[in-house]
Amino acid sequence: MNYTDLVNNIKAKQSFLCVGLDTDITKIPEHLMSFDDPIFEFNKQIIDATIKYTIAYKPNLAFYESMGITGLQSLEKTVKYLNENYPEAFIIADAKRGDIGNTSKMYAKAFFENMNFDSVTVAPYMGEDSVTPFLSYNNKWIILLALTSNQGAYDFQFMQDDNIKLFENVLETSRKWGNKENMMYVIGATKAEMLVDVRRIVPKHFLLVPGIGAQGGSLEEVAKYGMNKDCGLLVNSSRGIIYADNTENFAQIAGTKAKDLQTQMAELLKEYSK
Amino acid sequence: MNYTDLVNNIKAKQSFLCVGLDTDITKIPEHLMSFDDPIFEFNKQIIDATIKYTIAYKPNLAFYESMGITGLQSLEKTVKYLNENYPEAFIIADAKRGDIGNTSKMYAKAFFENMNFDSVTVAPYMGEDSVTPFLSYNNKWIILLALTSNQGAYDFQFMQDDNIKLFENVLETSRKWGNKENMMYVIGATKAEMLVDVRRIVPKHFLLVPGIGAQGGSLEEVAKYGMNKDCGLLVNSSRGIIYADNTENFAQIAGTKAKDLQTQMAELLKEYSK
Repeated sequence: MNYTDLVNNIKAKQSFLCVGLDTDITKIPEHLMSFDDPIFEFNKQIIDATIKYTIAYKPNLAFYESMGITGLQSLEKTVKYLNENYPEAFIIADAKRGDIGNTSKMYAKAFFENMNFDSVTVAPYMGEDSVTPFLSYNNKWIILLALTSNQGAYDFQFMQDDNIKLFENVLETSRKWGNKENMMYVIGATKAEMLVDVRRIVPKHFLLVPGIGAQGGSLEEVAKYGMNKDCGLLVNSSRGIIYADNTENFAQIAGTKAKDLQTQMAELLKEYSK
Repeated sequence: MNYTDLVNNIKAKQSFLCVGLDTDITKIPEHLMSFDDPIFEFNKQIIDATIKYTIAYKPNLAFYESMGITGLQSLEKTVKYLNENYPEAFIIADAKRGDIGNTSKMYAKAFFENMNFDSVTVAPYMGEDSVTPFLSYNNKWIILLALTSNQGAYDFQFMQDDNIKLFENVLETSRKWGNKENMMYVIGATKAEMLVDVRRIVPKHFLLVPGIGAQGGSLEEVAKYGMNKDCGLLVNSSRGIIYADNTENFAQIAGTKAKDLQTQMAELLKEYSK
């Protein structure tokens, strides 16, 4: 997907919602266990119920890898289902990969060629040659970790060299490797006030923002400090949507939760997207 | 595997060699393509030919993921083969994972429970709660990226706050999360002189050292600056061993290359392990 299509989808749906498909076999409704592939069935029903309100879907690889080969089969089916039925959905492999160039190239092949994801999250620690192999694909994106939503973010990401913090250095250095058409950044919602500093360095890039809901970040603050004229935000909710209910109505309730967020997002787009 | 067994294996084999199983279907000998699972067959023959000289095997996940489900099946078979036939081998999942706690726990399950690896490489960028879920397993290890062997290492790992560089801060901060019995560090051989600084902070931890051979690091220097009385090193070679030859003799030649390195390592253990 290219930048223009992404922005147009946001305008059309009046939403910048990303639904995190962190699907855990121990948490999905009991009645799904009678299906051949309960994980795929859960994802499919969540997608069908939320697509009207949702711009992006983000399966976290760890949840699928923890189920071995069958988990990866469920993931492949999910990505195929999205590509075939909802080509307007932006699909993110939340994988946080990154290795020497030779090896990152293999990860890029796995996510972009074999599985047809639109984007993959990448960890910046190993620097430029660990990131650039992902940038050689047309209309594919990397989403680089900059400022994460967890407590551990304070261990290293705020380390300061002269007047620049590590996460600012990651933004400042990496924005030269690509551009706003093939790079986004992960910025945790739990640190919404930092979005002012982030926007000073990368005013035009999209930001993928996890951490609202279960992790405590505020959607209003994220929009206030992080939105630009093309929106420039994908705000993720995982547990708050997909596990809102675990009866036979789970998908319908997930749809309602997604709609609630979309309604708030439409208001925020009116107020801050300029 | 526990610390004592690892040290005893090193003493018994007079080696601290790790063989990197970066197995690429486009690089393995032609005649293997007639096997049902050419990747597993290649790994099996490499392992059988090198085990006498080798302490650890390190499949890099990217190579297997790039082949989709069948690649992961080959990987699972390889790990099973090692565990069943050579229980003394220390098996490293070179995966460079790391995510919020809730998610890192899922990766730990994937590598330690489902696949029975002894250890997994982890990226430090997201801090303590992204690392500790891996430390709750008995006799399992994490190997944290500190100073990597690639050019991109210079982008962020040398960032300096007061008198401490980022990679030194990673060592200093993370050594409190575990101990020498469940944590190692990745330190690239291409920066062997930095091992003096590393050993000042973590004198007793094992270091996994990539970067000799194809990437240009010197084994002698790594031993000189990095070895401690228990050896404390696992030095990796991938391409220099597994792709030394691509005829029907590939495994035998790989064995010879591994033996050459083991012979040098026996000398270095005599000289520096004290």
